[in-house]
Amino acid sequence: DFAVALEMIHTYSLIHDDLPCMDNDDMRRGKPSCHKKFGEDTALLAGDALLTESFKLAANADTEASLKAKAISVLADRAGIDGMIGGQVMDLLFELQKPDLEKLEDMYSKKTGALLSAAAEIGCILGGATEDKINLASAFALKVGLAFQIIDDILDVIGDEKLLGKPIGSDAQNNKTTVATLLGVTKAQELSKTLTDEAIDILDKFEGDTSALKELTKFLLNRKF
Amino acid sequence: DFAVALEMIHTYSLIHDDLPCMDNDDMRRGKPSCHKKFGEDTALLAGDALLTESFKLAANADTEASLKAKAISVLADRAGIDGMIGGQVMDLLFELQKPDLEKLEDMYSKKTGALLSAAAEIGCILGGATEDKINLASAFALKVGLAFQIIDDILDVIGDEKLLGKPIGSDAQNNKTTVATLLGVTKAQELSKTLTDEAIDILDKFEGDTSALKELTKFLLNRKF
Repeated sequence: DFAVALEMIHTYSLIHDDLPCMDNDDMRRGKPSCHKKFGEDTALLAGDALLTESFKLAANADTEASLKAKAISVLADRAGIDGMIGGQVMDLLFELQKPDLEKLEDMYSKKTGALLSAAAEIGCILGGATEDKINLASAFALKVGLAFQIIDDILDVIGDEKLLGKPIGSDAQNNKTTVATLLGVTKAQELSKTLTDEAIDILDKFEGDTSALKELTKFLLNRKF
Repeated sequence: DFAVALEMIHTYSLIHDDLPCMDNDDMRRGKPSCHKKFGEDTALLAGDALLTESFKLAANADTEASLKAKAISVLADRAGIDGMIGGQVMDLLFELQKPDLEKLEDMYSKKTGALLSAAAEIGCILGGATEDKINLASAFALKVGLAFQIIDDILDVIGDEKLLGKPIGSDAQNNKTTVATLLGVTKAQELSKTLTDEAIDILDKFEGDTSALKELTKFLLNRKF
């Protein structure tokens, strides 16, 4: 149930992100975006509904009540002003004031990392993990999220438009500061490699088989799309 | 904490309601609306943030966990597609297809009644009330919410612009179907009186002193603003 709730929150964020007052994107994954197809009013309400219903689903989950309350708190925290929405607000502010690397990484951690970290943490919470393990899972997810976002930046500079399914160079064209424009592609690649290695090192601190998760983490580093 | 959470959800709904793609209201309670003052993008995120943080506040409330989970479920249900957002969607649809009285009452119950009912129910849940009493509180709140909305309709026809602080006649001007335009003012007044009486009768089924709540219910019937 919490996995579906997270997916609903992710979908709401994409719908609201595409709205004319935000990124004004007419297309999403090769199809018309929600507001293009159904109108802005419906898209706004659809996003609001997904967000609200995600918490209803979480509250109704068949899980021990105190773990459930803790998981809902983490979900709301990572989706809210200290997480994803906070990242969106920073993104708006950076249009007025160009960020340095530290601020950019902070914004990426919130915008992309927070929901990944919620997924990792909530899994641990519901599984009854110790506070230590919950924190490790969160740190792993934040590093993967940050690496993921930096690779997005790199692909916008040197990606293959056919594989990506969208034109490259949009960040430079929009005069947008990214890790790739700030550090250059080579240093950005080094940074994403370091973050990936650190994420994999964290996985070694878990007992049990983390090999699939390690493969996925490496795959994300080398993705071309 | 739940009272504040409800107020946050109410505020988010007002901010999103005022947006250009919804009611496009530049003023709210005599002041510039959120998007007029801070921009549409910020208003969208402010609404999203209030909604998300309301659930965080609820999840962190210092209350027994299983009651808390039930209260969060009610909060999300009444704010979501079976409640407030569902009412908004019906409101959009009614622009295309004029509603009859039954549909209009259903829309009012969701748009206005659902959050009031959440307030009443959550109070009962956290107070450890029986299922019977929770249902009575909900029925009371729905009747008050419906009466409140019908009086809004009436005031838009025969209200005093000075007391209201806004021009009257906007529903007729926008060709909007309301209970007052559908039944006429006299019959609408009778209906709101009946609903108020029924709400007060429900209060008699509670032990304890409900006189203040009765006075408030009567006050709402006779309000001029």
